[in-house]
Amino acid sequence: MTKIWGGRFNKKTAKIVEEFTASIHFDKRLFKQDIAGSIAHVKMLSKQGIIPSEEAEKIIQGLKEIEIEIRQGQFPFDIKDEDIHMAIEKRLQEKIGQIAAKLHTARSRNDQIALDMRLYLKEEIEQIIKYIQTFQITLLNVAQSHMDVILPGYTHLQRAQPVLLSHHLLAYIEMFKRDIERLKACYQRVDVMPLGSAALAGTTFPIDRHYVAKLLGFSQVSPNSMDAVSDRDFILEFLANATILSMHLSRMSEELIIWSSQEFGFIEIGDAFCTGSSIMPQKKNPDVAELIRAKTGRIYGNFFSLLTVMKGLPLTYNRDLQEDKEPLFDTIDTIKSALKIIAELWKNIEIKRENMFDATKKGFLLATDLADYLVTKGLAFREAHKKVGEMVKYCQKVGKELETLSLEEMKRFCPLIEEDIKEFLDMTKAVFRRNSYGGTSPEEVRRQIEVLKKELL
Amino acid sequence: MTKIWGGRFNKKTAKIVEEFTASIHFDKRLFKQDIAGSIAHVKMLSKQGIIPSEEAEKIIQGLKEIEIEIRQGQFPFDIKDEDIHMAIEKRLQEKIGQIAAKLHTARSRNDQIALDMRLYLKEEIEQIIKYIQTFQITLLNVAQSHMDVILPGYTHLQRAQPVLLSHHLLAYIEMFKRDIERLKACYQRVDVMPLGSAALAGTTFPIDRHYVAKLLGFSQVSPNSMDAVSDRDFILEFLANATILSMHLSRMSEELIIWSSQEFGFIEIGDAFCTGSSIMPQKKNPDVAELIRAKTGRIYGNFFSLLTVMKGLPLTYNRDLQEDKEPLFDTIDTIKSALKIIAELWKNIEIKRENMFDATKKGFLLATDLADYLVTKGLAFREAHKKVGEMVKYCQKVGKELETLSLEEMKRFCPLIEEDIKEFLDMTKAVFRRNSYGGTSPEEVRRQIEVLKKELL
Amino acid sequence: MTKIWGGRFNKKTAKIVEEFTASIHFDKRLFKQDIAGSIAHVKMLSKQGIIPSEEAEKIIQGLKEIEIEIRQGQFPFDIKDEDIHMAIEKRLQEKIGQIAAKLHTARSRNDQIALDMRLYLKEEIEQIIKYIQTFQITLLNVAQSHMDVILPGYTHLQRAQPVLLSHHLLAYIEMFKRDIERLKACYQRVDVMPLGSAALAGTTFPIDRHYVAKLLGFSQVSPNSMDAVSDRDFILEFLANATILSMHLSRMSEELIIWSSQEFGFIEIGDAFCTGSSIMPQKKNPDVAELIRAKTGRIYGNFFSLLTVMKGLPLTYNRDLQEDKEPLFDTIDTIKSALKIIAELWKNIEIKRENMFDATKKGFLLATDLADYLVTKGLAFREAHKKVGEMVKYCQKVGKELETLSLEEMKRFCPLIEEDIKEFLDMTKAVFRRNSYGGTSPEEVRRQIEVLKKELL
Amino acid sequence: MTKIWGGRFNKKTAKIVEEFTASIHFDKRLFKQDIAGSIAHVKMLSKQGIIPSEEAEKIIQGLKEIEIEIRQGQFPFDIKDEDIHMAIEKRLQEKIGQIAAKLHTARSRNDQIALDMRLYLKEEIEQIIKYIQTFQITLLNVAQSHMDVILPGYTHLQRAQPVLLSHHLLAYIEMFKRDIERLKACYQRVDVMPLGSAALAGTTFPIDRHYVAKLLGFSQVSPNSMDAVSDRDFILEFLANATILSMHLSRMSEELIIWSSQEFGFIEIGDAFCTGSSIMPQKKNPDVAELIRAKTGRIYGNFFSLLTVMKGLPLTYNRDLQEDKEPLFDTIDTIKSALKIIAELWKNIEIKRENMFDATKKGFLLATDLADYLVTKGLAFREAHKKVGEMVKYCQKVGKELETLSLEEMKRFCPLIEEDIKEFLDMTKAVFRRNSYGGTSPEEVRRQIEVLKKELL
Repeated sequence: MTKIWGGRFNKKTAKIVEEFTASIHFDKRLFKQDIAGSIAHVKMLSKQGIIPSEEAEKIIQGLKEIEIEIRQGQFPFDIKDEDIHMAIEKRLQEKIGQIAAKLHTARSRNDQIALDMRLYLKEEIEQIIKYIQTFQITLLNVAQSHMDVILPGYTHLQRAQPVLLSHHLLAYIEMFKRDIERLKACYQRVDVMPLGSAALAGTTFPIDRHYVAKLLGFSQVSPNSMDAVSDRDFILEFLANATILSMHLSRMSEELIIWSSQEFGFIEIGDAFCTGSSIMPQKKNPDVAELIRAKTGRIYGNFFSLLTVMKGLPLTYNRDLQEDKEPLFDTIDTIKSALKIIAELWKNIEIKRENMFDATKKGFLLATDLADYLVTKGLAFREAHKKVGEMVKYCQKVGKELETLSLEEMKRFCPLIEEDIKEFLDMTKAVFRRNSYGGTSPEEVRRQIEVLKKELL
Repeated sequence: MTKIWGGRFNKKTAKIVEEFTASIHFDKRLFKQDIAGSIAHVKMLSKQGIIPSEEAEKIIQGLKEIEIEIRQGQFPFDIKDEDIHMAIEKRLQEKIGQIAAKLHTARSRNDQIALDMRLYLKEEIEQIIKYIQTFQITLLNVAQSHMDVILPGYTHLQRAQPVLLSHHLLAYIEMFKRDIERLKACYQRVDVMPLGSAALAGTTFPIDRHYVAKLLGFSQVSPNSMDAVSDRDFILEFLANATILSMHLSRMSEELIIWSSQEFGFIEIGDAFCTGSSIMPQKKNPDVAELIRAKTGRIYGNFFSLLTVMKGLPLTYNRDLQEDKEPLFDTIDTIKSALKIIAELWKNIEIKRENMFDATKKGFLLATDLADYLVTKGLAFREAHKKVGEMVKYCQKVGKELETLSLEEMKRFCPLIEEDIKEFLDMTKAVFRRNSYGGTSPEEVRRQIEVLKKELL
Repeated sequence: MTKIWGGRFNKKTAKIVEEFTASIHFDKRLFKQDIAGSIAHVKMLSKQGIIPSEEAEKIIQGLKEIEIEIRQGQFPFDIKDEDIHMAIEKRLQEKIGQIAAKLHTARSRNDQIALDMRLYLKEEIEQIIKYIQTFQITLLNVAQSHMDVILPGYTHLQRAQPVLLSHHLLAYIEMFKRDIERLKACYQRVDVMPLGSAALAGTTFPIDRHYVAKLLGFSQVSPNSMDAVSDRDFILEFLANATILSMHLSRMSEELIIWSSQEFGFIEIGDAFCTGSSIMPQKKNPDVAELIRAKTGRIYGNFFSLLTVMKGLPLTYNRDLQEDKEPLFDTIDTIKSALKIIAELWKNIEIKRENMFDATKKGFLLATDLADYLVTKGLAFREAHKKVGEMVKYCQKVGKELETLSLEEMKRFCPLIEEDIKEFLDMTKAVFRRNSYGGTSPEEVRRQIEVLKKELL
Repeated sequence: MTKIWGGRFNKKTAKIVEEFTASIHFDKRLFKQDIAGSIAHVKMLSKQGIIPSEEAEKIIQGLKEIEIEIRQGQFPFDIKDEDIHMAIEKRLQEKIGQIAAKLHTARSRNDQIALDMRLYLKEEIEQIIKYIQTFQITLLNVAQSHMDVILPGYTHLQRAQPVLLSHHLLAYIEMFKRDIERLKACYQRVDVMPLGSAALAGTTFPIDRHYVAKLLGFSQVSPNSMDAVSDRDFILEFLANATILSMHLSRMSEELIIWSSQEFGFIEIGDAFCTGSSIMPQKKNPDVAELIRAKTGRIYGNFFSLLTVMKGLPLTYNRDLQEDKEPLFDTIDTIKSALKIIAELWKNIEIKRENMFDATKKGFLLATDLADYLVTKGLAFREAHKKVGEMVKYCQKVGKELETLSLEEMKRFCPLIEEDIKEFLDMTKAVFRRNSYGGTSPEEVRRQIEVLKKELL
């Protein structure tokens, strides 16, 4: 069979070329969007009198039947059809004959694929945002139901100051909030209707692009046809957002892995969410968290892949742009499955609250509180810091914690220290005292939870 | 000298460690922001009664003097000072003595550096947006003053259809518009005040973070202290935006390079913007465009650098985060210099309009017009496409262009073709006919220019 | 069904976890290697008396039957089997019963997968080297049969000096030679037998690892068990080599695209290797070259993907390592198909030798020759360069080429110029004169071709 | 001042262009190589009779003086000189007058910079290999002097089986051995002399490239001039090797960070190699390890930067290639400083051997040994694995370790267990038993150490 575009060609496409250039095996995913776009296009052609309305009706009917065929797995995909556009147009021809030949009036595959991708990505962004929100709600529930759990906050993976577990979880909810913001901002740039740009220069037919946009639910129409067929920003921006989102997931996964180690023992992941070893009978591994962490690699790689493709491409459409699809599809699939499973994972995590609290007891976590105390007694902060540093050094020598020093011992370092120091060296009270806006005190965390609940529920 | 934080340490930092960990040689760039942040912090401490107002005054006075010292190049930077924060605090101590020790009350370097970076980046984003706009205006001017220049629009670097040069340039203005949109969206996430998050958990002092935000011109205050000190999204998002922006610059550069080749001959870059060869006396090379294209590499690399750093980091602050600065600084410097020079470059480009127009004459650029014509005569588009394909094949065999075929020859392929075909095979008229919204017709391009002028001027 | 490793587990793996963690859908590609490895392992266990030889026989027989089942598409792959190892072991159990339970003695999936991947990659590297060589031979043939074709050599995409097309093609053969060298060097590091490292620490059974290595054709045995199960260098090094190889392919593709433009017109790609446009009947696009150029993106992305995965992983095996497979498989498939098709593409390229030669006539390509001539007449090179620069400037003003200047005009710039200059301003002779080692003269290029023929044929 | 190449130019280079295109601020690092290359070139020109020997002498003398000027910081670098080549040639002219104008005979900056970079990189690779070896020796010393330290070997960051610390360290020595192998392989491809390729096509002068190679210590001469001036493989391959090397460093750093956590407590880093906190007086952070981990980001980024630059560049030299330098220099500096400091860091690490050993006692690390034991008693491995899994489940319920189960309790799971099981449940003996080649037994590790000593010392 000659190709639909084969009029000027003397030779059939070589089989090896067909295989190498075909995209049908992955762009068939876009069938729904492709058909929706074609239907809107035909409605517009008919409204504008470019094709007769009865013919438009037949085309639309045919396209709807094809959609059903594909959904039901009865559509014969063939590598010779190159891509989803050609596959559908060819099938339409088989079904309704020559009228099908009018479908492609006033458009090109260049604007058609841009349309399909935008329709597709709009839907997926909406879905991903929902997945993130579901996950945020899961975390919020854990935060709310564990308001009394205190663990060490870490810097440099060294114990730093005591914090609420809920506060720690809220930090992640904030990260994901920004991820949603970015996706919403990106959505605005995806929500632009490119059809009617034709090959690159617009068309000579009296089309109505705004009508097509309305039919398909787009809020804007692309203002420059050359840009519209060669721009892949909307995909790049999405992929970039996905890299940051997956980075956040990798950080949480890293913590889950560290926390499940026997040394930390902060959490236990349920049996249903772990796997074992083929050789070591005792093993129970946090595989899910490890894989989420690892999948950051492909998300990063996918972005870099398309960035590389786009570098230095002259205008307008180049076949290189076909390579935008697989990275996008893979990133979407990966992100969605990671978000879905990490939310479930959290429902299968047991918080080991005693281990968490025990961990606060070693490491001089109240050193800053002690310094702050000295400031309230009149020392400048730097002096206070220095004094406490020396007390820590002393503690290490004699094997004590700050809380277990006697008042006398403390006074040796700083005579300003009085009985009221005991208050300052109580772990729970220390948490309560960090009541600054955004701080870890239960009062403040509860306030943050209320804000988030309003936003999320 | 012992470090300011050295109270608990038994040994001085090794020299090799000082050198390896120091950031002063690059973070000194942030001195202005660091001092502004400290001044706002001290004002707040004073307002809240945490330090006496006379002392606050002295600290502020000292900081202002230090800023002058640095601006005048009289500040003795020393690798031993680790970073800009310590360098300034130490100098403050030299200048005003012990009172300086109160400056660091209720804050940590963890929130301080987050503040500095955000202040800095806000300013730079604003500047970069201005640079982009300046460049857009340059392009708009070229577009406006060359409304009669027609050249081939390309797909696959093959001549496709005739377009206005102005239309082509407007495509780039659209890309840069989206770049600005992204930067503005990013700005919102940079514009968040982190100070008062202290080390990671907030502080026990009765601070007023919203007051600091107001003094420094931030519109939001970070809602979670652990997130605030460990988040680098705001930098990543900026770097991601820069990758897309630089990708756009690389595409334009590629075109400038191709267009300056002797084969295309579409433009001539002025002598002042080219360089020569050390061996070949005749050479005049488009070095500026080549370097802009190449600098995409470092912009991409910088983003991936920080993405790699962030992957899998547990909360909260880790020293790894220090590696956020150099990629950011380098990307900012590179983007700004590229934007600045490409705008100047365009002022030094001579458009070779005859060469551009001549190029439209070979390559059957009106084949689509001919097909569209046949559709108006009643053919379905696919049939029309096929017929024209065959005519092209014929032309190639006999060495003609579509425009030079006789009516008779044409009728042999399709009897529907009549005298009025001549209209359709006129290059200039073909451009006028592509009058769909976003298309390349002068009317449409002029409309777009008006829209852009309103936005940009 | 409980998992094979499920002894200590109280709950079945959640379905969502099975799906998320399964690798069977992509690692089944390794069935041949997995079975070969298991057979060698069992032979060794038997030789060492760890399992009885009759049982070993039965296991081997079972494994061989399974291999046939898989090859014939009769093997029931199931996501519940997790990976290819478990799938095969389970099937073995179905076939030969309890004896199958002995197969996994003294090994772990950790060393098993390392073995499979190494066996697989060894084979693929050998294949890829063959593909490159086939392509080199194709290029060499083109070079040999076009020894008389002269075109401009370019720097900065500006015409620089005349060169032989053959010389240009040989440059690529050299690049691919280095690619092969790198792959061969990499092969040595792949060719290391890891089995017997067990989970991470070696095994308590009296195994003979060198025997297994011998059976499987490995030249080395991994010297450290912890390294052997957690190292993925051998894949990274391969992926890195692939990035450089694909970069070379992208450079050649770029040239083919530029050369096929109407402006250059240096080559014509055969119809069977181009595709057309759905809207523009005249289009014939160099899609194959564009796609090869674009696929650089995924090759780069795949390397960066695995680099990201590996960053910061503690020893030894982590589930993250599962993410090594898809990038590797995709890179191998992509590289092989690109190499295969580009070799075919070259057989479908028509060299437009007149266009190439015509292009040498404009652009002052003999300016360097003229400068060299002046040096032979006694000028220092820098002075000669300057003089010729001025002559070029003059030519541009009066619209001449250096070759068309009269002797008189030339003498005005430099009285040393004499009648013998004509020799120096002949394009073909200029090529012959560049006879330095590695230069473009036919004599020198022919010598290089002979060297390459010896290496390749 | 007009540029040396400015003969044909009508206008001076714009200042903004000079600044944007200059490389002198970073390529001045190559002065030594540039001068050495020029001297060799001049010697050859003289030997071949292309310039008189007295003039050659003067040029060489001048160049040597310039080298001294630069070394002594007396050389006036100026952005107007563009690059190190022009800076030196201009200075030479100032010093020796017109004869200097002969230096550039038969060469171009295109081959000159390729030469400089290769000379430079050869030296640096040799240095880096030495740095790695020094570090390996440090690790080997630690391994040798801690042969009795046992800690848990981890998979999935879960305790898996007991291993020798020395075995763990040897794993890293193996990784670095491969890094050295890769660097040596790369060195061979760097060790190729490109001078004499001139601009791109070779030269018309009767040069002797092999003589230059001999003078400069190169083992090969580049066989194709077009390839020689446009190839940057040798840098890419080095940068790729550096990514893998830095990945290894990141893994070790990650472990040092985890091991220094209070929860693990496996090591203590000396005060001289840690830094403190500006707010938290108790903090002692593993900053050096964190920064080494983080610097992986820039090493990765640098490679991708140059990969991006090279993608799709047509032959031959393009100005884009100038962007090869900064990534290379930064990677070299970073790798060297990281290697230097991590070797020193290890000398400042205290091994907490009791903590390490204590950690082996919880986590059922001998479960595999128990399964192996059951195999020796006649069970098939899978059955044995299952039995032990059940015993572990039981232990967890009753709060015991495998070692603390009574024989009776064990027999309940498997009657085959006898008194001799005690032997198998001794941690130290378990380590001794893993005596397979590459395993963790002291005997085997000692053997490996001897092998490494022979290689390294």
